[in-house]
Amino acid sequence: MIEICLPVIIVNFKTYLESTGKNAVELAKKAEKVNRETGFYVGVAPQLADLKAVAEAVEIPVFAQHVDAIKPGGHTGHVLAEAVQEAGAAGTLINHSERQLKLSDIDEIVRITRQKGLMSIVCANNPTISAAVASLKPDMVAIEPPELIGTGIPVSKAQPQVVSGTVQLVREVNEKVILLCGAGISRGEDVSAALKLGTQGVLVASGIVKAKDPYAIMREFAEAMKM
Amino acid sequence: MIEICLPVIIVNFKTYLESTGKNAVELAKKAEKVNRETGFYVGVAPQLADLKAVAEAVEIPVFAQHVDAIKPGGHTGHVLAEAVQEAGAAGTLINHSERQLKLSDIDEIVRITRQKGLMSIVCANNPTISAAVASLKPDMVAIEPPELIGTGIPVSKAQPQVVSGTVQLVREVNEKVILLCGAGISRGEDVSAALKLGTQGVLVASGIVKAKDPYAIMREFAEAMKM
Amino acid sequence: MIEICLPVIIVNFKTYLESTGKNAVELAKKAEKVNRETGFYVGVAPQLADLKAVAEAVEIPVFAQHVDAIKPGGHTGHVLAEAVQEAGAAGTLINHSERQLKLSDIDEIVRITRQKGLMSIVCANNPTISAAVASLKPDMVAIEPPELIGTGIPVSKAQPQVVSGTVQLVREVNEKVILLCGAGISRGEDVSAALKLGTQGVLVASGIVKAKDPYAIMREFAEAMKM
Amino acid sequence: MIEICLPVIIVNFKTYLESTGKNAVELAKKAEKVNRETGFYVGVAPQLADLKAVAEAVEIPVFAQHVDAIKPGGHTGHVLAEAVQEAGAAGTLINHSERQLKLSDIDEIVRITRQKGLMSIVCANNPTISAAVASLKPDMVAIEPPELIGTGIPVSKAQPQVVSGTVQLVREVNEKVILLCGAGISRGEDVSAALKLGTQGVLVASGIVKAKDPYAIMREFAEAMKM
Repeated sequence: MIEICLPVIIVNFKTYLESTGKNAVELAKKAEKVNRETGFYVGVAPQLADLKAVAEAVEIPVFAQHVDAIKPGGHTGHVLAEAVQEAGAAGTLINHSERQLKLSDIDEIVRITRQKGLMSIVCANNPTISAAVASLKPDMVAIEPPELIGTGIPVSKAQPQVVSGTVQLVREVNEKVILLCGAGISRGEDVSAALKLGTQGVLVASGIVKAKDPYAIMREFAEAMKM
Repeated sequence: MIEICLPVIIVNFKTYLESTGKNAVELAKKAEKVNRETGFYVGVAPQLADLKAVAEAVEIPVFAQHVDAIKPGGHTGHVLAEAVQEAGAAGTLINHSERQLKLSDIDEIVRITRQKGLMSIVCANNPTISAAVASLKPDMVAIEPPELIGTGIPVSKAQPQVVSGTVQLVREVNEKVILLCGAGISRGEDVSAALKLGTQGVLVASGIVKAKDPYAIMREFAEAMKM
Repeated sequence: MIEICLPVIIVNFKTYLESTGKNAVELAKKAEKVNRETGFYVGVAPQLADLKAVAEAVEIPVFAQHVDAIKPGGHTGHVLAEAVQEAGAAGTLINHSERQLKLSDIDEIVRITRQKGLMSIVCANNPTISAAVASLKPDMVAIEPPELIGTGIPVSKAQPQVVSGTVQLVREVNEKVILLCGAGISRGEDVSAALKLGTQGVLVASGIVKAKDPYAIMREFAEAMKM
Repeated sequence: MIEICLPVIIVNFKTYLESTGKNAVELAKKAEKVNRETGFYVGVAPQLADLKAVAEAVEIPVFAQHVDAIKPGGHTGHVLAEAVQEAGAAGTLINHSERQLKLSDIDEIVRITRQKGLMSIVCANNPTISAAVASLKPDMVAIEPPELIGTGIPVSKAQPQVVSGTVQLVREVNEKVILLCGAGISRGEDVSAALKLGTQGVLVASGIVKAKDPYAIMREFAEAMKM
């Protein structure tokens, strides 16, 4: 079983050029440095084409951004859990608002990751969807209102009721799942606000990837978690 | 510009375990060996998670199985042309029958690959669809009747009129595009039948990947091309 | 508010010719006859093109087979809740296994139907998915293992643990939702088995639509419900 | 065979409330009035739920906004060509930019409509896509740059080279297909500009549906066609 130290920071590299190829490896090393210096759990989710190189370069957990609800076979152009695992992934994002899935596929992918010992982080747009996916028993649920993604307006401060409402609804159906807060998180105070509202970490993308000094921001996030 | 020696063999690794991870690298090396021994163009299309490792291990052309119609940005879980290119891809399959796309996305992906100097191999189910995609001016069009894929029943022998009909319709709209024949190709005679019908190569998957001796079959394919 | 007498029979007309156009109206009239004779709630779900004609011909509840997660506007080729309601629909199926949806769309469609006073029947493939959709608070959840749909092998008899497991998981998150049982239901005893397992009705398609005497089967279903 | 008098006006009702339910019937009657007064071909494409009522109310051609690539059977929530035909449709839009399809489905739907004697109007985003769909031999191709849809900026005046480029590319592969021009058409002069560029008609939506006086605008369109 995978052991996770709470709270956690997961950095989604998306498909930004700043986090593609060599840049992906460099950014992952900065994340690893923050992990070494602060002890906080920092994971990274690079693109598939970069996954193996990143996983070989760092010792922090590396996540795929997506896997498909398939078994080995004839599925050209799809993402096989076995392939990302052999490439070094510790888990995967599922149903990110930029890669939304049919409900039956989310269910199937959570099952596949559980069987393989991969961590599952299911993304959800709002409190009711968060509760729905929590009942599928993934390892983590990340609440990310899509209208705030990439805006720099942190959900934890702009819509605290969305986060607290999610915590409440999710806890009614699942006491164990780790709850992450995403969308618009770009400063340490956004992170501490998220934790105070009852989440156990953050899922962040442009706030780190597009920052002038991603290391400094990750460090700021980690410092905010100490408090 | 990419120069291609005709005829060509492209091996689609799909998501078979026999062509995942370390197996992908080994299979690619066998393809490279056939290329070195026979001089024929042999390309391989591994999964994305294996693409970089395969591209670093061999000197033959490596293709992605899919890229998305996106530009760098916030597209979690999608496949960026820039990322597969930096990982070492020479091109990509597009619209495989197991990963079919909206027409406007096929058009956009062909444009993106052209801009980046990546080779585009667009797959098509039947003669009219082949002609439709040929008018988008990709580098190659692969005709693969989906009902024959993975059957071992070669389209070039079971449905020669599909192949010759494709050649005719495609040539009316595009004289230059390289035409590949796929679906059910598993023996040398299937390959020579395909070439006699007017195609310039084959796109093959299980016939190689699931063969007891993939090297022997690829070698047989190359010998068949000499005639 | 819509009042529903339990237990219920909902007949999904799918896209069978036997339930298209004039045939749709005739079949709906047979359903209405069973309702009049037995007092049991019998609803029908014809195709969209037939919805208005069916709704004008009978006084039993008529359902759409699908609506989209859209508001009025520029959405060519999509299904607007307002349009099906004005055409006479009392509600709609959502996420049938033949028309599966992204989770966020299911959530949005349930919200839209609630706002409009339309009944929502969300279909689910298995117990965990049933619980997930139950937490979105639709009016009904229909459990239909896709591998049994259209087989004549009744889920209520072949896989009673799927039905009872669904009842249990769903009741943990939602005490009120009406639970239907679908897939393979074709005889009265399948219906009584479904009710004994804790469901409040059945969602049935080919078992009625393709029957030699649909009226007789619906009558048999209703008789089975009396016991 | 269907006979079509050129040039043509096709009004896409989309899912606007102004063209839903009773409003759909009223708007169709205005279109019929313009047809009677001017002799020009005016077709309407209402939502599916309104299709039968509209087809019964007017004698001008009525189109579906979409049909699916299916045959009669178990396809809950999909649109069967036989059903729209029995409801009175003369044809259907296919691949509107708001309802884009996989290429193989476009091909299949064009075949189905041809078999059934339904008219096919395939929409395309740009000149190359227009040529690609023209090679599938539908009855009509409508070029609509999506970025201009609903803007009131007419493609025929803002991007005349898009329209003339489409005419040129399409004619290389298909001499017979009727070419329509869409997106941003809202005045008579936009219509005449479209015809001068070599198209045989217009596909229009908000320019009519959201107009204060839809009858007056359709009349203006028809007058512009006389010149």
